[in-house]
Amino acid sequence: MDKRNLVYIAQSIDGFIADKNGGLDWLQTVPNPDNSDMGYYNFIKQIDAIIMGRNTFETVCGFDCEWPYTLPVFVLSNSLKSIPDSHKDKAELVNGSLKDIKRNLNNNGFNRIYIDGGKTVQNFLKEDLVDDLIITTIPVILGGGYPLFAELPKTIEFELIKSELFLNQIVQNHYRRKV
Amino acid sequence: MDKRNLVYIAQSIDGFIADKNGGLDWLQTVPNPDNSDMGYYNFIKQIDAIIMGRNTFETVCGFDCEWPYTLPVFVLSNSLKSIPDSHKDKAELVNGSLKDIKRNLNNNGFNRIYIDGGKTVQNFLKEDLVDDLIITTIPVILGGGYPLFAELPKTIEFELIKSELFLNQIVQNHYRRKV
Repeated sequence: MDKRNLVYIAQSIDGFIADKNGGLDWLQTVPNPDNSDMGYYNFIKQIDAIIMGRNTFETVCGFDCEWPYTLPVFVLSNSLKSIPDSHKDKAELVNGSLKDIKRNLNNNGFNRIYIDGGKTVQNFLKEDLVDDLIITTIPVILGGGYPLFAELPKTIEFELIKSELFLNQIVQNHYRRKV
Repeated sequence: MDKRNLVYIAQSIDGFIADKNGGLDWLQTVPNPDNSDMGYYNFIKQIDAIIMGRNTFETVCGFDCEWPYTLPVFVLSNSLKSIPDSHKDKAELVNGSLKDIKRNLNNNGFNRIYIDGGKTVQNFLKEDLVDDLIITTIPVILGGGYPLFAELPKTIEFELIKSELFLNQIVQNHYRRKV
């Protein structure tokens, strides 16, 4: 079974995933009358588990809606002592080196792992542990905010697998790590 | 006549236009056996003049080849006193506010202006003086270098005019400032 870590994320033209105030309203800049999911369902149906950082986890916990994931969620944190009681059945805490975490998840049958959240994506990229990068670009320049990418120790080459256009305005590029 | 400032530039997936050493070798990452110009000729044939910063000007002066431009080149610099004698017939010095420079060029019949070079593009964006943004993304994460974008005072919305694929690997998005 093909073991892969995948990123599926939206950015502005200038590479931010949240605006200066951490806001996400700009994601709705392009009218979406038919509620296109921009490939999310096709992406998520191949995923076995999700790894997210504490920030993303706490953000999702705070959303005024049902828990949005049906997949196992692993929360990466070295500071959090335990998952709050309200979400004990929703998520599991993991910590340690990313390589070990990945190996453990793979050994438990979680082979296709969705890496979610800004810092977590950056940390996986730093260790060259991202295989697929699916980036959806919203046609807006935010001029500041939370960046998708951070400094890396070395260049990583990718192959473009697919480039898709949504709502005639939003380009989604699927890159795969060259091996 | 339609007056527009246009940017045509290549970036890495993580938004750099030159690597950590200022190098550009990564632009050749994708094999280009038939020497596709990736739309450059179609872009440049509609241009009346080029504005570039001192850095870009000095870089081009240092290239071991013929002067590559047939169009009038205006070099934006508040520090340079004059264009070196070797390039007196190639370029003209301009300084002052970008709005005034644009107005002067327009008044002299230069209506479609190519804004070139990292800092110059950033400065024009800061004053919301970029109408068209043609960004070509090379499938590599550099992990550092000279960024295409910088902090801006406000969000700028664009419309996607066209998304084109070159060499089956390189996506070029043409964005136009929403009016």
